[in-house]
Amino acid sequence: MDLNAKPYDLGQPYFPGMPHYPTHPPFLYSLTKRHGDMVHALGATSAADAIALGTHVGTHIDALSHFSCNGVCYGGRKVEQTYEHGMAELGVDSIAPIVRRGVLLDIAGVAGVDVLPADFEITPDHLDRAATVEIEEGDIVLLRTGWARLFSDARQYINNTIGPGPGIEGARWLSSRKIFAAGADTVAFEKSPNPAMPVHVHLLVESGIHIIEVLNLEQLARDRVYEFLFVAAPMNIRGATGAPLRPLAFANPGPVRRKPLSSPPGSILKE
Amino acid sequence: MDLNAKPYDLGQPYFPGMPHYPTHPPFLYSLTKRHGDMVHALGATSAADAIALGTHVGTHIDALSHFSCNGVCYGGRKVEQTYEHGMAELGVDSIAPIVRRGVLLDIAGVAGVDVLPADFEITPDHLDRAATVEIEEGDIVLLRTGWARLFSDARQYINNTIGPGPGIEGARWLSSRKIFAAGADTVAFEKSPNPAMPVHVHLLVESGIHIIEVLNLEQLARDRVYEFLFVAAPMNIRGATGAPLRPLAFANPGPVRRKPLSSPPGSILKE
Amino acid sequence: MDLNAKPYDLGQPYFPGMPHYPTHPPFLYSLTKRHGDMVHALGATSAADAIALGTHVGTHIDALSHFSCNGVCYGGRKVEQTYEHGMAELGVDSIAPIVRRGVLLDIAGVAGVDVLPADFEITPDHLDRAATVEIEEGDIVLLRTGWARLFSDARQYINNTIGPGPGIEGARWLSSRKIFAAGADTVAFEKSPNPAMPVHVHLLVESGIHIIEVLNLEQLARDRVYEFLFVAAPMNIRGATGAPLRPLAFANPGPVRRKPLSSPPGSILKE
Amino acid sequence: MDLNAKPYDLGQPYFPGMPHYPTHPPFLYSLTKRHGDMVHALGATSAADAIALGTHVGTHIDALSHFSCNGVCYGGRKVEQTYEHGMAELGVDSIAPIVRRGVLLDIAGVAGVDVLPADFEITPDHLDRAATVEIEEGDIVLLRTGWARLFSDARQYINNTIGPGPGIEGARWLSSRKIFAAGADTVAFEKSPNPAMPVHVHLLVESGIHIIEVLNLEQLARDRVYEFLFVAAPMNIRGATGAPLRPLAFANPGPVRRKPLSSPPGSILKE
Repeated sequence: MDLNAKPYDLGQPYFPGMPHYPTHPPFLYSLTKRHGDMVHALGATSAADAIALGTHVGTHIDALSHFSCNGVCYGGRKVEQTYEHGMAELGVDSIAPIVRRGVLLDIAGVAGVDVLPADFEITPDHLDRAATVEIEEGDIVLLRTGWARLFSDARQYINNTIGPGPGIEGARWLSSRKIFAAGADTVAFEKSPNPAMPVHVHLLVESGIHIIEVLNLEQLARDRVYEFLFVAAPMNIRGATGAPLRPLAFANPGPVRRKPLSSPPGSILKE
Repeated sequence: MDLNAKPYDLGQPYFPGMPHYPTHPPFLYSLTKRHGDMVHALGATSAADAIALGTHVGTHIDALSHFSCNGVCYGGRKVEQTYEHGMAELGVDSIAPIVRRGVLLDIAGVAGVDVLPADFEITPDHLDRAATVEIEEGDIVLLRTGWARLFSDARQYINNTIGPGPGIEGARWLSSRKIFAAGADTVAFEKSPNPAMPVHVHLLVESGIHIIEVLNLEQLARDRVYEFLFVAAPMNIRGATGAPLRPLAFANPGPVRRKPLSSPPGSILKE
Repeated sequence: MDLNAKPYDLGQPYFPGMPHYPTHPPFLYSLTKRHGDMVHALGATSAADAIALGTHVGTHIDALSHFSCNGVCYGGRKVEQTYEHGMAELGVDSIAPIVRRGVLLDIAGVAGVDVLPADFEITPDHLDRAATVEIEEGDIVLLRTGWARLFSDARQYINNTIGPGPGIEGARWLSSRKIFAAGADTVAFEKSPNPAMPVHVHLLVESGIHIIEVLNLEQLARDRVYEFLFVAAPMNIRGATGAPLRPLAFANPGPVRRKPLSSPPGSILKE
Repeated sequence: MDLNAKPYDLGQPYFPGMPHYPTHPPFLYSLTKRHGDMVHALGATSAADAIALGTHVGTHIDALSHFSCNGVCYGGRKVEQTYEHGMAELGVDSIAPIVRRGVLLDIAGVAGVDVLPADFEITPDHLDRAATVEIEEGDIVLLRTGWARLFSDARQYINNTIGPGPGIEGARWLSSRKIFAAGADTVAFEKSPNPAMPVHVHLLVESGIHIIEVLNLEQLARDRVYEFLFVAAPMNIRGATGAPLRPLAFANPGPVRRKPLSSPPGSILKE
């Protein structure tokens, strides 16, 4: 391991006015103590801040409990929930820190554009063409649409919730490979809008595959890094359906031993 | 790199009632949408949550702008601040993802106790005795007091802000080694209470060394892992004086090349 | 004025899981300091709490700046807004404490039901039949649908945003009477869903008439109090588009002198 | 009742950077949806905001459960509390909307200054001299220090928590009159600092008298309105130890009938 190998930062920054899906509570920030408000002995002062946000705002991971169908989540677990403590099972605190092989599928690159149009559906054919390496069980598969470039303008990035993403066939292509998580650089991993949210249902509820959203994949694509070590530690919020995380990608991490799923996908909680 | 090498999780969980220093806004959580509140087509439902917290609550890193002395922060940077956007310089967003050599100094272990008493000052002598490997420039140095064991009871963990930590001599021992960051498993990296906060001032303002607090170092100590690869990506909040992070420690990461500070400590922002 | 005359409380309570319109940040609550966490001299302890919420959550008033049309708000004021400070004009801080004649129109009562069905549109005919007293310029006009009875169950109350309310004709009936504000006991003063939000646009943008939502009008209706003194002081949030308020209704306040609008409706800011 | 009689607004505004006692979570604000982020049919757009704050921030009332002594609150009620739901008894939701006789004691005026010095203790002698009318059972008694003039500068207003207020003798002067609530224009109704908080303990725990803080009494004093109708409706937060409120004072409300406490002070919850 070469400590001088700077990782790629796949997270987006947090700031007032940053994009958020309309139904999720936005990011609030305030400096809550200014330097000088209180003066410690010897002239020292400190400043501090506070934030508030939805757990699906900014770069984040969806816990499997984020979606359910007819009252059950992945693996047939019945929904048990309270406002005060969230989900009794499959919360984001059940996701261990993630250290896995990551694979980039540069869909925008394959399509020959910087940014996919809003109505672009990612199909199995696009996925086949963008996959430069074989996808293996347990991998993290990231689809680049180029929308990270729009992130600084909330209006463009949210775009009335219209945006590119996989449809159900694309989702099936991913789930058949028994991956650990799928992600993209958009606010919803879904050809949007689709009120039925079929990709979320198929991945989270039917397949036990996590979803990572609002990534920044621009630098990876620019450097043509299609295979990497993916390291991410979600904020460990008890019972939550999602959490911020700031994933890192290490190119050329040296010889990497495969990490198959030790059991059916999604069941490997607290791995 | 062996993907099967599970990293140590050095972060504490977030939950209602978790400990917080009295002057920092505590952690709030609520499930904001329950499964079933809205039903998507085909019977799918989703749930989501929101959180609010101070940036120095839970496992977190102090940006250099957290403290100032007589109106200036580290490197002579003048304090420029607004409530709405925080600090113009030395914010937590200026800290690149951290991939560095980590070193554990098990002070409680050296003292022969599970948990250091609240009035215990960590001195250079304790540090000398606990350092099983040589500390190098650019390292992350973590001091174990054993207080992570008290974390589940906010009253004990905060303890009227009385707790063990280094005094100014301990801080000088650390800064003389030109490390990147110092951390511990307590709420304040400081023999507390000390209203002058000399350790914070010496490390953050005078030495440009970050502070990481509220760590969980129990498992590392139990396994006698005193040297490791330390990987952490602070939540990237623009202008903030601190941020949550969930550090990982990889034992035996293979041959590790030294990573000296490329410039005087603290100045290597956006490295 | 008889101090023993207990006012009617027209506000709903705040609690975790209380109803909120999906696009508005929900209510968060936590006790942030427990009795006993810190002990003052002589055995005294204190407890404290924190909350977070959208400004259009719970019983609240819409500032005129809540809606705009083609870039302009009421009175032709151009939208000027920042994330950090909200609206430069027509913010909720421009609404003086409200002390006006209030009038209840019990639409559910006229319709002969406890709770209006979700698809019920309130028409001028309903308004005519429910108005037991003449409505005058500057009045507060409150329409009862009975939905306050559903408030304790967020799912029923929000009901996929389908609910009873006036259509555009009902809104015109109200605006022609030059009232100060219109209100109801539902989450949206609008026959919902209607993505064009014509009632909000007509009242707020075209007519300068405020909207008050999520009221509790049950007790007033039960006691057949159709005319009252309406007193309410919105939370004075600088630049906000809305604010919580807890209106009081005083029945039989003694002789009440008319309070006409001193100028075209809506322009009487900072009255 | 003359609707043209404009009430006095005794509340302070909310804005980023507003003063807050260091141990209470500060006020956060953000416009969370801008006009134009989403466009409704026909060109309409809406904007909305969110806030977060401690319940003892800004103009607020202390519930009797805010303080306890040796595990019991007023009336011998044992402390029962959870992080998620606050206090089981004596929460702010047990305070009915307040409609009572208010009395202003202009201590700064009596002292011949605009603003009382930070170390000024309000004594029974000051109270005697400032009371221009007789105080009666059930009244709201407001003490003016002039500190409302400092409110726009958080540093001055908080002043390292040093500020004027009554000592224990002043508190006893008030409690002997069996009033409903005492208030002032400072952040703490207490000669501060006094770590034992004797005035809070005496009023809240021993006497069942509420405390109202961060008032603005400047206009009342300027107009020499020493007796008035006091109307205030605290934000109705279930289980909370305090809540924002924006009190109104009506001068010359006409003949006012006395409103004695129907039972020992403080026990008249849900009156």
